[in-house]
Amino acid sequence: MKPSGVITFTTDFGHKGPFGAVMKGVVLARFPDAKIIDLTHDIPAQWPPEAGFWVSRAYRYFPRGTVHVAIVDPGVGTERKILLVEHDGHLFIAPDNGLLGKLLDDASNPAVFHLDESKLTSLGLDAPSATFHGRDIFAPVAAEIASGKRTVEDVATPTLEWTPAWLDEPDVSPGRVTGVIVTVDTFGNLISNIGRTLVDKFREPVIHIAGHQVEMRQTYGHARPGEYLALVNSFDVVEVARAEGNAAQGLGSDRGAPISVTDGYTV
Amino acid sequence: MKPSGVITFTTDFGHKGPFGAVMKGVVLARFPDAKIIDLTHDIPAQWPPEAGFWVSRAYRYFPRGTVHVAIVDPGVGTERKILLVEHDGHLFIAPDNGLLGKLLDDASNPAVFHLDESKLTSLGLDAPSATFHGRDIFAPVAAEIASGKRTVEDVATPTLEWTPAWLDEPDVSPGRVTGVIVTVDTFGNLISNIGRTLVDKFREPVIHIAGHQVEMRQTYGHARPGEYLALVNSFDVVEVARAEGNAAQGLGSDRGAPISVTDGYTV
Amino acid sequence: MKPSGVITFTTDFGHKGPFGAVMKGVVLARFPDAKIIDLTHDIPAQWPPEAGFWVSRAYRYFPRGTVHVAIVDPGVGTERKILLVEHDGHLFIAPDNGLLGKLLDDASNPAVFHLDESKLTSLGLDAPSATFHGRDIFAPVAAEIASGKRTVEDVATPTLEWTPAWLDEPDVSPGRVTGVIVTVDTFGNLISNIGRTLVDKFREPVIHIAGHQVEMRQTYGHARPGEYLALVNSFDVVEVARAEGNAAQGLGSDRGAPISVTDGYTV
Repeated sequence: MKPSGVITFTTDFGHKGPFGAVMKGVVLARFPDAKIIDLTHDIPAQWPPEAGFWVSRAYRYFPRGTVHVAIVDPGVGTERKILLVEHDGHLFIAPDNGLLGKLLDDASNPAVFHLDESKLTSLGLDAPSATFHGRDIFAPVAAEIASGKRTVEDVATPTLEWTPAWLDEPDVSPGRVTGVIVTVDTFGNLISNIGRTLVDKFREPVIHIAGHQVEMRQTYGHARPGEYLALVNSFDVVEVARAEGNAAQGLGSDRGAPISVTDGYTV
Repeated sequence: MKPSGVITFTTDFGHKGPFGAVMKGVVLARFPDAKIIDLTHDIPAQWPPEAGFWVSRAYRYFPRGTVHVAIVDPGVGTERKILLVEHDGHLFIAPDNGLLGKLLDDASNPAVFHLDESKLTSLGLDAPSATFHGRDIFAPVAAEIASGKRTVEDVATPTLEWTPAWLDEPDVSPGRVTGVIVTVDTFGNLISNIGRTLVDKFREPVIHIAGHQVEMRQTYGHARPGEYLALVNSFDVVEVARAEGNAAQGLGSDRGAPISVTDGYTV
Repeated sequence: MKPSGVITFTTDFGHKGPFGAVMKGVVLARFPDAKIIDLTHDIPAQWPPEAGFWVSRAYRYFPRGTVHVAIVDPGVGTERKILLVEHDGHLFIAPDNGLLGKLLDDASNPAVFHLDESKLTSLGLDAPSATFHGRDIFAPVAAEIASGKRTVEDVATPTLEWTPAWLDEPDVSPGRVTGVIVTVDTFGNLISNIGRTLVDKFREPVIHIAGHQVEMRQTYGHARPGEYLALVNSFDVVEVARAEGNAAQGLGSDRGAPISVTDGYTV
């Protein structure tokens, strides 16, 4: 992988305190020309699958050679390993806790590594703290690789084993697909793990969520104000929205809620 | 316009999910040296006038040649057009939904264009999604212009028509000016659309809001803790504050609330 | 101090409105190659000690030669002075209101200055607004120094007097240390001002907070879900957490709450 010099961060650290910022400081101290982009720091606390979902859906919009660091890490400081994945010309670094499981399930030929902490001494790292590996391990490793000073192989060992994905794949039966709401955006749109290809062949797809049956539209503005609608969104998954409103509040739904699509209305 | 290489983003996307970030990824893929600044992503959902207010008040603090992208776009994916405005050495790009109406009303000699989607094929753009033109149109167009690779004329056509501003101008009568609260900041300060020049000649300006009459001060620290005050703020509009407190909460006021200024107290 | 070109911002401005962004615009207009990092803009409104705490704990992770601007400034526009402190190869700029008091108490040999507003005309500054010195004074001064165009001495005068720290140092008696919660992070972890060295010699440190006695662990994952724990965190101070939960909510505690550490349980 030829590095682009771009690093993205995806975490559940929020915006209070300097947690995201000190990772950037550590990167800049090692790689002054780094271009650092916050993918989001608002992943729900300690829920890795949303981080994995967004990283796997968003990475392709960054230049090839970008290093994507995703940290939702309830096991920080315990024996959990750190995973590095080369896929589609991008590098992904995350705790080996299932965060990257979905990306790995979908990747045709990923190169997968575990960080080898014995190789980190050559990076001049102090002993890491027990609670902030983002600063003490992830950031310096990302900086070294994004700057081209080290390769993945310099710091990691190939592996064939990793923690599987947190969420089950959608359940597919004739005329029905059942999945789950993975995340809710700022507008209250409910975003599922049901991909476009699973419903593309339905003649009249109808979404079932929270006791409602909702029709598919092409975009938000094609529904009347207050009306619920569903669409295949810009990240190619089924999403439930409310025109000029907030679907999550209106339906009382949130991440984790079940959602299904049938071909036509049911009774 | 000679581009500065700086791009600002103003949206209602919030911080959950990668929506702002993927626009930056798209920019960096086309223009690796771009300097991207988030003006704010916390515009209230689908309320364009606040975005227009802040862009028009803030742009002058950026280098000339900056490209300001503002996206509050309930009509995304429908027939609404996209506006490009050159004014005062800066370029503004936004949906043609009134967001830039106030800026255009105040500009002495703006150059106004509509994006010509037929010209976008030369940019190597895929067909845009129906719901995320920020990523699929605004970001690549901004990158091409900010990098100097394309001019506005390369992608847009001059126009003399656009959607007017969302908010009425303040109403001015002898001894009284009546406007509206446009936005509330983090401190709970209520920021109006009444400019300094409208009240400069008043001998004893008194602000009327939510049944209170409030005097003007020079700065927050010139009032007693808990006291309401008004001032002409650093963006040259009338603002109502509460010393060491939150005026919006204390007065039960929010954006859209009426506010007026009289010359002297009224009974 | 040899500037690194990096500037950090720490404020209570929040993310609504363009307040942080226009400071960046002002910096870029004077210093196009600046690398600007938001430390945080979520300091509680008008509470300087949290800003000082995070700046003093976080600065060392940035390259030497970084300019750290911290603005929590209820006295903006009144007679309060502006402090510049060179310490440990970094420069700190903040209102002289106690924000930097703790950093100065701990620094062995800081060089301390007051901004001399009479020297600012040479920077081509307009008269500052009464309410936004971040944009009108702090940002241009930081840009001039971070770019190497001016030195601290060019804009400031040495001083031996400054406003003392807002918070008392922890109270230390045999077998007991008593401090205060300085801040709460996104996870609800309660972060105190009790440093590692104050409790390092305790054989069996026990934390007392909100009527609970809590044991020390090495990291979050070493407690059972729902259990309260304490640890010396990655910024070397005592922190109270709840495994897979939110300690602040669970204990009903917030910044300002007393916390003490004893050597062994008490009855």
